[in-house]
Amino acid sequence: MEFEERIGYRFRDRGLLETALTHSSYANESKTPIPNNERLEFLGDAVLSIVVSDYLFHRFHMAEGDLTKLRASIVCEKGLFQIASHIGLAQEIRLGRGEEHTGGRQRPSIVSDAMEAVIAAIYLDGGLDQARRFLLPHVEQFLTDPEEQPPFRDYKTILQEIVQQNPEEKLAYVLVGESGPDHCKQFSVEVHLNSNVIGRGTGSSKKNAEQMAAKEALQLMGEG
Amino acid sequence: MEFEERIGYRFRDRGLLETALTHSSYANESKTPIPNNERLEFLGDAVLSIVVSDYLFHRFHMAEGDLTKLRASIVCEKGLFQIASHIGLAQEIRLGRGEEHTGGRQRPSIVSDAMEAVIAAIYLDGGLDQARRFLLPHVEQFLTDPEEQPPFRDYKTILQEIVQQNPEEKLAYVLVGESGPDHCKQFSVEVHLNSNVIGRGTGSSKKNAEQMAAKEALQLMGEG
Repeated sequence: MEFEERIGYRFRDRGLLETALTHSSYANESKTPIPNNERLEFLGDAVLSIVVSDYLFHRFHMAEGDLTKLRASIVCEKGLFQIASHIGLAQEIRLGRGEEHTGGRQRPSIVSDAMEAVIAAIYLDGGLDQARRFLLPHVEQFLTDPEEQPPFRDYKTILQEIVQQNPEEKLAYVLVGESGPDHCKQFSVEVHLNSNVIGRGTGSSKKNAEQMAAKEALQLMGEG
Repeated sequence: MEFEERIGYRFRDRGLLETALTHSSYANESKTPIPNNERLEFLGDAVLSIVVSDYLFHRFHMAEGDLTKLRASIVCEKGLFQIASHIGLAQEIRLGRGEEHTGGRQRPSIVSDAMEAVIAAIYLDGGLDQARRFLLPHVEQFLTDPEEQPPFRDYKTILQEIVQQNPEEKLAYVLVGESGPDHCKQFSVEVHLNSNVIGRGTGSSKKNAEQMAAKEALQLMGEG
C-alpha cells in the first residue's frame, strides 16, 4: 500500500508531501537546491496542537492543568513517533547517506520531525479539517493505549498478594531509567523479588512503569 | 464603544464571551456555580499559535529556528498583554473582590490569560477564520512595533559619533535588569557617559535595549 493510502489523504500538490519527507541531510547532498522539511515542521507542531486541544477541550471536562498535561503527553516526540509508526513513515523519509549509515532512519527525533512536517503538508494542501480527519483516529488510539490509561487490572496488587503468601519474600520496585523532557518523560522500572529482577516495565509515569513491570513479572510466573 | 465593537466580532453565544471574561476569583465568589475562563485559556493558547505560525510561515522565508523564536516572542504573556491593551480588555474582566483590591486587574498574567480565553471564545463561536480575522491585525502591529524591529536609525552609532568628537569622553552600556522567561525576555540597559547615566532603554534583546537607551540619550541631548 502506498503512503497516501496509508495516511488516507491524497495530495493535490505532491511537491508538498515530497518536501515534508525530505530531511536536511538529503537536501544538503542534492546537486540542485531543494527545500527540506524544517519549515513545515515548525508549522506542523501548531497544527497538531490546535487539533489535539480542540478535541480534548470538548471530550474531557477536566480542569485546565490536567488538559495541559494530557495535551503535552500527545504533542511531543513520543506521541508523534507513535503516529509515525502507525503509518510507516520512517521508510518514506529521504535521508542523506551519512544519516542513513548512522541509523538516522530509526532516530525518534528525525522521524517525529518528519511527522510534524507531514501534518503541516496535509494542513497546507487540504486545510485544518483534513488535518483533523487524519489526526483524530491516532489521537483517539493514543488515549485508549493501555499504557497511557490507568491499568484495567491492578498488577501490582495481584503480584503483592501472590508474593506475601510466603512471608520471607520481599518485593521492591527500583527506578532504573528516566528520559525525555518533563512533559513527556519515560520511566523504566525493575521489580525485584529479594535481589532478583523478576520483571521490567516502562511507562509515562513511575506508577505506570511499575504496573508494567508487575505485569511482566506475573506473565513470567505464569499468572499474567 | 462596547467590547464587541472594539474587538470587531459579535458573538452568537454571548455566554462564551462571559465565561472568557470570568476570572476564577469571581467564579469562586459566586453563589451559584459558574464556569471560569481557565479551560478556554487552555484552548486559546493553541488557537493563537496556529494563527501566528501560519502567518509567519507564509510571510517570512526564514529558517525554522528563526520562525520559532519569532513565534515565541508573540505567543507569550508579553504579546498577549499587548493585544489585550489594544482592545481595553482589563476593564472587562470579572474579578473577585480580593483580586480587585490587590491590583489583579493590572496583573499581566490575569490579563493575558483572559486574552487567551477571549481568543478561544471567538474560535468556538465563529471558527478559525474569525479568530484569524481578529488576531492578524494585532500580529501585524506587533511585527511592525519599532521596539521589535531592527531600529530604522542606528542610534548607537549616531551617539558614538557625537561623543567621540571629544576624545576624553567614554560611552558605556550597562545591563541593569532582565526579566521574563527565555523566549520572552525584557532587558533594561543604561547608557553611561563617563560615570553619568545619560539614557535608559528596555527591549526584547540587549541590542534593542541599547538602541532604546541611545535614542533616549540623543533626545535628552536635543539630537533625537
